[in-house]
Amino acid sequence: MNYPVSKNKSNNNYVNYAHRGMTLESDINQTNKYYLDNDIALIYKKPTPIKVVKVKYNKRINTQITEAYYETPSTTDYNGIYKGKYIDFEAKESKSKTSFSLNNIHDHQVTHLIKVLEHGGISFLIIRFTTLNKTFILSTSKLIDFIKNYNRKSIPLDYFEKNGKLVIEKFSPRTDYLKIVDELIEENLEVHNEKE
Amino acid sequence: MNYPVSKNKSNNNYVNYAHRGMTLESDINQTNKYYLDNDIALIYKKPTPIKVVKVKYNKRINTQITEAYYETPSTTDYNGIYKGKYIDFEAKESKSKTSFSLNNIHDHQVTHLIKVLEHGGISFLIIRFTTLNKTFILSTSKLIDFIKNYNRKSIPLDYFEKNGKLVIEKFSPRTDYLKIVDELIEENLEVHNEKE
Repeated sequence: MNYPVSKNKSNNNYVNYAHRGMTLESDINQTNKYYLDNDIALIYKKPTPIKVVKVKYNKRINTQITEAYYETPSTTDYNGIYKGKYIDFEAKESKSKTSFSLNNIHDHQVTHLIKVLEHGGISFLIIRFTTLNKTFILSTSKLIDFIKNYNRKSIPLDYFEKNGKLVIEKFSPRTDYLKIVDELIEENLEVHNEKE
Repeated sequence: MNYPVSKNKSNNNYVNYAHRGMTLESDINQTNKYYLDNDIALIYKKPTPIKVVKVKYNKRINTQITEAYYETPSTTDYNGIYKGKYIDFEAKESKSKTSFSLNNIHDHQVTHLIKVLEHGGISFLIIRFTTLNKTFILSTSKLIDFIKNYNRKSIPLDYFEKNGKLVIEKFSPRTDYLKIVDELIEENLEVHNEKE
């Protein structure tokens, strides 16, 4: 009875995940479970925010929600802790072979990623080009650079190749993004050391 | 149309918040907004997890969810970043004048709070005794002490008075819990320094 329902059909900016193979989301969830089981990090996907309008109470089974609507998330999809650091990111798939449209990410999500960076956390995007089967991490600072320097609503693949970091897919953990996060932490330390 | 629906009627362990004045949840949400607006911290309440079973697509309005059920949260309700540190907590009200029942918190939530501590984050409970109008922060280490040393399913008020920290309620921010978190961070540093 509890079959999954594709939730984004109404929004053309999203990839419809129904009837597909492994998605970025399921890969990241599996990876997070691996991190949790091996006590490497605690990173969870936040539940999709839903506004409940009507419920039906039933003593025998759980309360049934009979009318509800999807809401826009306030922040990003994933956050947690790794090596004592606050980690925060958004993950998105793109079918395009040439670019990733920033329309896929809400402005307030970009603002949130920037704020996390300013508060001393590690934040980034994980973007998978599904047709090319390539997954990149783009740090928030490189995202800011792009927004500042280019007057474009799409980040070209080339920008990811030069400024992003490729995540190697493997069997387990499938999308070992914390390996890249180690590099981001290292770079942050270097920036801080240069400042001092 | 979007009136709030009390979600916990089916669960006797929870306080029913409907038709009440300011609740702990609304106080914390207001406080988090104050922290966000003043760039002090980024702390958000996670959405309630809901399993969607049936939806109705409608081109004019948003997709309507017509059958869904509340799920048990995987972690705690609140997390975020403050002074570069990962913050994680659960907040609960109690009507009792004498104790707080641990039945109000899932075992896996306690496990999660402990893991956060082990990974170098700051985790705690915020418990409000609504009848007494007293709100305490109990650090995870004091929670662990209680569980280890007492074979009881309820934490007496007395334990909060001695081992918790009282949060002073004011106009804005209403429940300034980060003031207490500053003390927890300070104590953690002292513990680390003693170890070295």
